[in-house]
Amino acid sequence: MLKPLADYIVLEPIKEETTTESGLVLPETAEQEKSQKGKVIAVGPGKLNDKGERIPVEVKIGDIVLFHQYGPSEIKIDKKEYLVAKEDDIVAIIE
Amino acid sequence: MLKPLADYIVLEPIKEETTTESGLVLPETAEQEKSQKGKVIAVGPGKLNDKGERIPVEVKIGDIVLFHQYGPSEIKIDKKEYLVAKEDDIVAIIE
Amino acid sequence: MLKPLADYIVLEPIKEETTTESGLVLPETAEQEKSQKGKVIAVGPGKLNDKGERIPVEVKIGDIVLFHQYGPSEIKIDKKEYLVAKEDDIVAIIE
Amino acid sequence: MLKPLADYIVLEPIKEETTTESGLVLPETAEQEKSQKGKVIAVGPGKLNDKGERIPVEVKIGDIVLFHQYGPSEIKIDKKEYLVAKEDDIVAIIE
Amino acid sequence: MLKPLADYIVLEPIKEETTTESGLVLPETAEQEKSQKGKVIAVGPGKLNDKGERIPVEVKIGDIVLFHQYGPSEIKIDKKEYLVAKEDDIVAIIE
Amino acid sequence: MLKPLADYIVLEPIKEETTTESGLVLPETAEQEKSQKGKVIAVGPGKLNDKGERIPVEVKIGDIVLFHQYGPSEIKIDKKEYLVAKEDDIVAIIE
Amino acid sequence: MLKPLADYIVLEPIKEETTTESGLVLPETAEQEKSQKGKVIAVGPGKLNDKGERIPVEVKIGDIVLFHQYGPSEIKIDKKEYLVAKEDDIVAIIE
Repeated sequence: MLKPLADYIVLEPIKEETTTESGLVLPETAEQEKSQKGKVIAVGPGKLNDKGERIPVEVKIGDIVLFHQYGPSEIKIDKKEYLVAKEDDIVAIIE
Repeated sequence: MLKPLADYIVLEPIKEETTTESGLVLPETAEQEKSQKGKVIAVGPGKLNDKGERIPVEVKIGDIVLFHQYGPSEIKIDKKEYLVAKEDDIVAIIE
Repeated sequence: MLKPLADYIVLEPIKEETTTESGLVLPETAEQEKSQKGKVIAVGPGKLNDKGERIPVEVKIGDIVLFHQYGPSEIKIDKKEYLVAKEDDIVAIIE
Repeated sequence: MLKPLADYIVLEPIKEETTTESGLVLPETAEQEKSQKGKVIAVGPGKLNDKGERIPVEVKIGDIVLFHQYGPSEIKIDKKEYLVAKEDDIVAIIE
Repeated sequence: MLKPLADYIVLEPIKEETTTESGLVLPETAEQEKSQKGKVIAVGPGKLNDKGERIPVEVKIGDIVLFHQYGPSEIKIDKKEYLVAKEDDIVAIIE
Repeated sequence: MLKPLADYIVLEPIKEETTTESGLVLPETAEQEKSQKGKVIAVGPGKLNDKGERIPVEVKIGDIVLFHQYGPSEIKIDKKEYLVAKEDDIVAIIE
Repeated sequence: MLKPLADYIVLEPIKEETTTESGLVLPETAEQEKSQKGKVIAVGPGKLNDKGERIPVEVKIGDIVLFHQYGPSEIKIDKKEYLVAKEDDIVAIIE
């Protein structure tokens, strides 16, 4: 189990499929722009403020989020690609 | 539905048309300078200050705004181009 | 109408004319150094300080100001060139 | 014995093995991506906050952690390679 | 009249003359190092501190000052070259 | 005698010897990686915090320390090479 | 007379002589490393802290000091080379 520290968020990237006009579904390829959508799989307890109080992170496990283009960085856990973000890298929750 | 975090603002870019002297309306092209006008389509609740209080964002959904030249970054949502800005990237509201 | 946010200031650049010795007046050209003089056409309400109080901007609409060389950035509004500055980019008011 | 200062953390890098389909176990090589997993072997007492109070580090000796890609830097102690991280370089504890 | 804002200082550069051994006085040329001496011709009221109080600038009009090598930037006012400095760019007053 | 200011620390670099398999001891050469071990020969009284109180440095004269790879910079005193570090450059005390 | 502002310090660089084995004294040349020793010839009153109190500089006129390699910058006063440092550039006082 992953227990992130501070406001670290671990995301599973959500790949966008491309549907051609004839209805063919093409998986995301290296040439296509990377998706900026991810699913939250682990969240830290939040950063401490100047008074030593925790500021809880505003996303929770399972949330589908949009993240900032160059914010998160890649991390490999058990040979699978994940993304590591800080709360400020998360633009919005998609509901 | 998009629920931005902190002071993130999602903008729909407004393209400027070019009217030639003879009255012909030309759409914005790649060669032309990019417009710096956008329509607010989603706004976060605002950042927290040092005391843990929210500072509400001063733009609201539907506002037409001017944004700073290199401030916002592009984001693709459902294959449509949007812009992600922070409040400080917004120069002015056009009324 | 433009309603700047925070301490954003919109300036109309004032071009300097060049008078030759024989009295000929030459308009500013691309080769000449850019003027650093502008007329304030819109001003924001000022930034918030740490206590959440507004710090009013010290220039007002109509002021002729000197601005810092690389401070303001260009913005096109209705196809006319303006400059966007923050208060710190304004060096002095010319009276 | 190593006594780290402030929030310095000394890590022993954990190399990932690669198992081929036929069951052959290959050690991590230079060509493979570096692992981002490490074992905590020494931890400082934590940084001082503005009031002069220690903020204890949230990892302890023996913890297996994921660290940020470019966070820690290498250090050689008695001819063996270790990693030096600050608390903010630690993404998560693996339990 | 120039009314600088905050801690902006407008300086008139003082050129150094070079006296050759035979007593010939040579004006500063482009090849020579630029002088770092200037005369204060306008001073702002000072910056505001965190409590909203003005911190008066420690130089006054007429002072001859030494300024930091790359601190001030050039500004042309009515076709004459001046220098714009912030208080931190002023090394010392020459008395 | 050297009296460092603030949290400056002067270190004498400790060179690592290389012992070959046959027992030959080779001194550190330019080609080898630089050691990151040093002996503290002078320590400042510590930095002042925001309240004007000294924060004592956590190393003392004689301590053998590990320092951060690119932290300290070289200084020549009486033609001998030393290292100048700030407290934050010291990773750990070796006991 | 020079009256430095804030925590500016004006130093006279102290050149190191090189004594050859036969006792010949060679002055510092351009090829040799620059000395990092200087004599304090003028000191400012110190910076203001957040409460508006002066923090006196810890060196005084006449002190021989070691300074940080790239800290001070050169300044020419009456055609003589001096160095301008801030207090943080001074590593230690040599007594």
